[in-house]
Amino acid sequence: MRRLYHVPLCPYCRKIRVALREKQLVFELVEVQPWAAEDWFLELNPAGEAPVLVDEDLVICDSRAIEEYLEEAYPQSSLFGGSLEQRAETRRLVAWFDSKFAREVSDPLWREKVVKRWKRAGFPSSEAVRKGAQAIRLHLAYIDWLWQERKWLAGDRLTMADIAAAAHLSVLDYLGDVPWGEFQGARDWYAKMKSRPSFRPILADRVVGITPPAHYDDPDF
Amino acid sequence: MRRLYHVPLCPYCRKIRVALREKQLVFELVEVQPWAAEDWFLELNPAGEAPVLVDEDLVICDSRAIEEYLEEAYPQSSLFGGSLEQRAETRRLVAWFDSKFAREVSDPLWREKVVKRWKRAGFPSSEAVRKGAQAIRLHLAYIDWLWQERKWLAGDRLTMADIAAAAHLSVLDYLGDVPWGEFQGARDWYAKMKSRPSFRPILADRVVGITPPAHYDDPDF
Repeated sequence: MRRLYHVPLCPYCRKIRVALREKQLVFELVEVQPWAAEDWFLELNPAGEAPVLVDEDLVICDSRAIEEYLEEAYPQSSLFGGSLEQRAETRRLVAWFDSKFAREVSDPLWREKVVKRWKRAGFPSSEAVRKGAQAIRLHLAYIDWLWQERKWLAGDRLTMADIAAAAHLSVLDYLGDVPWGEFQGARDWYAKMKSRPSFRPILADRVVGITPPAHYDDPDF
Repeated sequence: MRRLYHVPLCPYCRKIRVALREKQLVFELVEVQPWAAEDWFLELNPAGEAPVLVDEDLVICDSRAIEEYLEEAYPQSSLFGGSLEQRAETRRLVAWFDSKFAREVSDPLWREKVVKRWKRAGFPSSEAVRKGAQAIRLHLAYIDWLWQERKWLAGDRLTMADIAAAAHLSVLDYLGDVPWGEFQGARDWYAKMKSRPSFRPILADRVVGITPPAHYDDPDF
């Protein structure tokens, strides 16, 4: 049985959960606490990070490595697109969300508010939270702009770009940190993502001690 | 003509310069200053980051997107390896250096000492520099350990894993921040990287105002 070791409120793990479902690959979810640094988990991934995918006897670590693996091992219903140009555009936007958005928004909001709590590493830095709340507006405006030109973020079809963006935003939306009202295009795009069957299990996650806002799992928010 | 927009003392740009040379692809180098945020560069890459590769009429942004593109467009002399397992191991280690090593070592040392200077964003945080100098030892020990088991970091052949690791270490070595003396295996591996023709142009770079240590470009250091 294919097995994904994951943390529920983690954008990188959510990205792979959605990708596996979009490719209609059956898998079992195992929740882990990477910050506990248990020996069995470090043996699986010496970097001590989730997600980790175990597929038959193959162990694949790192979310971008996992999505490239899925594309090579299961080329049906590609999540990168066909042409070299389309694939470059998909990967550019995956990097946008997993690196730039992560650094400017997810790190100052999610890492400060959630990961620090998991690690019992103190309280969120209010300066970081303020900066993250400011930066998210630029990124939502960029999604608005892409959405005006395209059916999906990287072009005519759903790709890993949409999945990466929605995975990050879903975590921030759980925290009530996405000012959807100001960005109608981004909101319409995210509503389309929310209504996909691959996305429903993500929206059903609940984390002890943090309650999401009422609109969180409503596709018609 | 293939063209790479780069910053000389940047690990991600160095990674792509070496990869292009290992694949024997001819290219022209154009030095950029992404922090100047010039319009023409933001049009090329809205993220405002180097490296950017322009290959015929295709623009590819983000170093991991570029290396995946090179692998797909020019499959000869693969830098990822053949089997799914080998490719997963290569990508795991690329992620190790481009994410974990970057966060724990390159960001606190290179970003603090060099990038801040470029951006005129103040002086390095001495706490960050101290933490980076501590963390690099764990990573050199990990290279030592891989090197005992393998001919190259990800197995029997040179891959993007070696190139990513060496690109980061070359920048830190320029700053005199690598305690090679304590890690003989890592040193032997890096000497092998330094003697490759693909690596020589990197070692010839000089940056105004920062002088590398005497051993920096000596393969028999």
